[in-house]
Amino acid sequence: MVQYLHPHLDASFAALSDATRRGVLEQLYRGDASISDLADRFHMTLTGMKKHVGVLEHAGFVTTQKIGRVRTCKLGLRRLEQEAAWIERYRQVWEARFDALDNIVEELKAKERNDEQNR
Amino acid sequence: MVQYLHPHLDASFAALSDATRRGVLEQLYRGDASISDLADRFHMTLTGMKKHVGVLEHAGFVTTQKIGRVRTCKLGLRRLEQEAAWIERYRQVWEARFDALDNIVEELKAKERNDEQNR
Repeated sequence: MVQYLHPHLDASFAALSDATRRGVLEQLYRGDASISDLADRFHMTLTGMKKHVGVLEHAGFVTTQKIGRVRTCKLGLRRLEQEAAWIERYRQVWEARFDALDNIVEELKAKERNDEQNR
Repeated sequence: MVQYLHPHLDASFAALSDATRRGVLEQLYRGDASISDLADRFHMTLTGMKKHVGVLEHAGFVTTQKIGRVRTCKLGLRRLEQEAAWIERYRQVWEARFDALDNIVEELKAKERNDEQNR
């Protein structure tokens, strides 16, 4: 059975696949911000920024709260544990694969040196 | 100046935002596979699987080689260093934020205990 179902990974990786959305998160690292602050900072319309914030909110990266006419954004409650684990697993497999390739190359080189000495 | 431009992060996070594509990568951890093997395993048409493999190839996760009529897929040359670093940075900020919140809660609790003792 193929182990590939982490349904919320779809939403979180999709949310991270846009430079503006990653920028918004980096901005929220420094502190909460209103949607109009974010729109100004990223040279966007309010409507455009609302869409980006909506995607981040859906993925759990951001929570928003409306007080009066101002909607304030802050970092959400997702710790990105599964996302980090997924990428770490890929990196481990990758390292193991390419270490194995390195070993093959080293063995071939050693064999060649041996053959030269025995000639 | 906002530091949010890692253009290839767009392509790699977008490639990872689909459960089938993550499944294909997990399959390639175990060994190379042809596109028709992958189509069978994921109950997809060849055309559907070719599209997914194309997205993975564009992001550098997969390389393909056609020999005769068979196109074989293998893990690509991307180590996902920047992706791992991005997620790690988010997690560090997140932990620091919520540790700070924990401290505030602890301080409030301590103050309440003090007030009770002084009553």
